[in-house]
Amino acid sequence: MRKPKVVILGAGYGGLMTAVTMQKLVGVNDVEIVLVNKNDYHYETTWLHEASAGTLHHDRVRYEIRDVIDRNKVEFIQDTAVEIKKEEKKVILENGEVDYDYLVVALGGEPETFGIKGLKEYAFGIVNVNSSRQLREHLEYQFATYNMEEEKKEERLSIVVGGAGFTGIEFLGELTNRIPELCHEYDVDFNKVKITCVEAAPTILPGFDEDLVQYAVSQLERKGVEFLIGTAIKECTSVGIIAGKKDEEPIEIKAATVVWAAGIRGNSIIEKSGFEAMRGRVKVQTDLRVPGQDNIFIIGDSSLFINEEINRPYPPTAQIAMQQGQCCARNLAALIKGKTDLEVFKPNIKGTVCSLGEDDAIGVVYGKKLRGGKASLMKKVVDNRSLFMIGGASLMLKKGKFKVF
Amino acid sequence: MRKPKVVILGAGYGGLMTAVTMQKLVGVNDVEIVLVNKNDYHYETTWLHEASAGTLHHDRVRYEIRDVIDRNKVEFIQDTAVEIKKEEKKVILENGEVDYDYLVVALGGEPETFGIKGLKEYAFGIVNVNSSRQLREHLEYQFATYNMEEEKKEERLSIVVGGAGFTGIEFLGELTNRIPELCHEYDVDFNKVKITCVEAAPTILPGFDEDLVQYAVSQLERKGVEFLIGTAIKECTSVGIIAGKKDEEPIEIKAATVVWAAGIRGNSIIEKSGFEAMRGRVKVQTDLRVPGQDNIFIIGDSSLFINEEINRPYPPTAQIAMQQGQCCARNLAALIKGKTDLEVFKPNIKGTVCSLGEDDAIGVVYGKKLRGGKASLMKKVVDNRSLFMIGGASLMLKKGKFKVF
Repeated sequence: MRKPKVVILGAGYGGLMTAVTMQKLVGVNDVEIVLVNKNDYHYETTWLHEASAGTLHHDRVRYEIRDVIDRNKVEFIQDTAVEIKKEEKKVILENGEVDYDYLVVALGGEPETFGIKGLKEYAFGIVNVNSSRQLREHLEYQFATYNMEEEKKEERLSIVVGGAGFTGIEFLGELTNRIPELCHEYDVDFNKVKITCVEAAPTILPGFDEDLVQYAVSQLERKGVEFLIGTAIKECTSVGIIAGKKDEEPIEIKAATVVWAAGIRGNSIIEKSGFEAMRGRVKVQTDLRVPGQDNIFIIGDSSLFINEEINRPYPPTAQIAMQQGQCCARNLAALIKGKTDLEVFKPNIKGTVCSLGEDDAIGVVYGKKLRGGKASLMKKVVDNRSLFMIGGASLMLKKGKFKVF
Repeated sequence: MRKPKVVILGAGYGGLMTAVTMQKLVGVNDVEIVLVNKNDYHYETTWLHEASAGTLHHDRVRYEIRDVIDRNKVEFIQDTAVEIKKEEKKVILENGEVDYDYLVVALGGEPETFGIKGLKEYAFGIVNVNSSRQLREHLEYQFATYNMEEEKKEERLSIVVGGAGFTGIEFLGELTNRIPELCHEYDVDFNKVKITCVEAAPTILPGFDEDLVQYAVSQLERKGVEFLIGTAIKECTSVGIIAGKKDEEPIEIKAATVVWAAGIRGNSIIEKSGFEAMRGRVKVQTDLRVPGQDNIFIIGDSSLFINEEINRPYPPTAQIAMQQGQCCARNLAALIKGKTDLEVFKPNIKGTVCSLGEDDAIGVVYGKKLRGGKASLMKKVVDNRSLFMIGGASLMLKKGKFKVF
């Protein structure tokens, strides 16, 4: 009898968690598991703000996929998924195709630019390892070039961060730590550096505790960030941005570096493959399957899972993607064993911690508010926990964040 | 009685050597010594190829001027010399002026672009700390960007070095060591990288021993360099260069990085101040003074000192600049003491070593040919010797190049 074949697209938090959970739940004779990923490494999306600012090397935020999968049970294919052919039960890859009995789509999100002109062309993103190290090098190049020019271009030292959500704020925390280092490295006067955070919403970190938000704002302002809240970016150009408050005349902010850190949408393969979606995200059933598609799971950033209590979707976080991966793996194991009664996904939100740099953070963990050093320590615990969940103690010890006292 | 005032312009090899030698020769009551330099640091011009390739951090190639001068005897002014007013015995600085009784012009050279179109706009130079770290960052940015673009631009990985003289060859040695690191760092296929060295002269390292030149060429070719000899760069553009052999149709070489490492000329202040000069270099008397100007010495790259044996000028090297600095200091001390019989400068050429990277070099030292590890060791001895001559054992230990076995 042919073994059923499970194909997992994507080795981010959701996909990799599905793979490593399944390899514990099923025997090598029960199922064929294939994991497809563009790179041969997994990267910590939630650490990219550090690699982007240059406070943590990009090799610290990634690890080999082959190091965490059981190669007897999971076959790894390095390739990029192009389209899902639901009727034919196969996935078109850039360099081939792969058929499946069960499919897990865990391909991760893409930046949502809301159609703002020039963002795709001129803004940098904190999206993956490639984009992060490009942003880091771009920043360094601006500082390195500043002193080279007879007519000093002040905009080389001007950085605009679009978005004061999680990614924007965490990046600002790292950036403000990195700037003094860059100034020292390239003999640049710290007072000439200008950091502006532009956020269209009326507040930074919407949904976060207000006291903690106040703390974050004052900490970042103290380190040189100017916040323009309730201000939308209208256009990004080769020399900066045009932004304005509602009903006010837009202003130009010159900046050689514009970072777009506001909003993500689902993967473009979702729409391309004919799934019904909202901004690339599919509203999945409580068992994480696509309505009407009994053999396709979608998890992570391309899924929309409704929080019934407030009738709004859960945010696309690593925490939820990993929990979905575990639930998805258990449901796949059940299906393979012929069961039809699948587990209902129940997110277990332990808390949220937003880093403000190496030694500072804000957070709510198990309902308790934290800030400063304690919150920062908790952030590292969270980061290490992801490593532990996917690769056990050895991966955590190899890649974890430990302070050496 | 007013003390005579000696002003030294430039704290490169020649100027700094003049200052530190003088401070040993004269008492604090005999003379007022002022050293003027654009930066508050001295940099090792002969190490810049390493900082440019990124194999040695730029902080390793510079040190504080205040650390090596005797501040009781030498006043340091951080400013940029703009023009020398010979008749008024004063120097116009960017932020003021300084008068002198005796002047030492040791301002160093500038790149000679021979009027080649586009070089100033588009080519990078290995000229000072600013230009070197900009080149390093530019290279890194090209590698970091390569993987970010859907349509790969192969020219991002194409580097043209214009000039196969000392600087060009030493840079190629470091660059070929750095490329595998960059490929690893940015996940770039080594085979896609293209390094081309274009030299108008019929040979690389003109004047060097032929066997050693052959060795250098084969070593660099083995590490991926393609040499186009007898080929002149006609134009540098935003996308590469146009180059051609005599009587042949010029070709285009696409390259995101063009490094101009061919030829230097004297400082532009020389012509601006009305000195008679050839390519910014003043043919000085045997006592290093300017003909007709009994109180002005010119040393280093802006001086032209004729080797009587072959009736050609000595090359502008650090070795000669430092020896000129010592001779100049002794002649100044003599003048101050009322003597008129000045020392004739006699270069003492101990040898020449050209590095081919961390562990490889070619050289002729005291008439003996060296290559490989031995020559490389000798190169480090030469580098450390400059430090010792200027700042003694403590500077050498702090900034020197020592292999840790």
